[in-house]
Amino acid sequence: MQDIENKWTEVEQAIAQEAFEKAYKREVSALVEQVRAKSHGLLALEDLWNLHDFLSAKRHEIDGKYDYDYSVLLFVFANLIKDGWLHLDELNSGQNACLRESFLNTTKK
Amino acid sequence: MQDIENKWTEVEQAIAQEAFEKAYKREVSALVEQVRAKSHGLLALEDLWNLHDFLSAKRHEIDGKYDYDYSVLLFVFANLIKDGWLHLDELNSGQNACLRESFLNTTKK
Repeated sequence: MQDIENKWTEVEQAIAQEAFEKAYKREVSALVEQVRAKSHGLLALEDLWNLHDFLSAKRHEIDGKYDYDYSVLLFVFANLIKDGWLHLDELNSGQNACLRESFLNTTKK
Repeated sequence: MQDIENKWTEVEQAIAQEAFEKAYKREVSALVEQVRAKSHGLLALEDLWNLHDFLSAKRHEIDGKYDYDYSVLLFVFANLIKDGWLHLDELNSGQNACLRESFLNTTKK
């Protein structure tokens, strides 16, 4: 773990941490809104159990998805970009495109 | 099952069915309101998972509770009365106090 972490420069780690938190906050915020909207349409017991099933699936998905582990982090970012929670450009920081380039090189392989 | 059902007169069965449905509708309606109210206070992921835990517990409780089986129905009613979803007087129908009396005799034992 120490070795893998050392392959990421301090700048890359800072960009990665910020991007990870941004994506997490966006997804949580969208999920909270989605559950609030669903709750307005609740009428019957079936609606409650549908909401329960929806939350079960989301809990499983989110618990597995937000794994801040440097050995898998580029793949975590790939999924977050695919799902629209992160933009590729957010793996840059100012003039520093290092993490974006690492990401593109890794995901091309 | 046929034997047990035959111990309930048609009048008792009709009163029981009506009382059961009343309690069920009241509890579902209160639960829907409770979930709607909880959803207004949702802010963070932890709140969503608390709601998920709450729905898991309620689903387990309600699935086990509303068992329309004549062999256990008086005990189902006892629980519904204890929890406030049914009033003892709702086991009467007009001048007919038969089911209320059966219930009181059984639960006294």
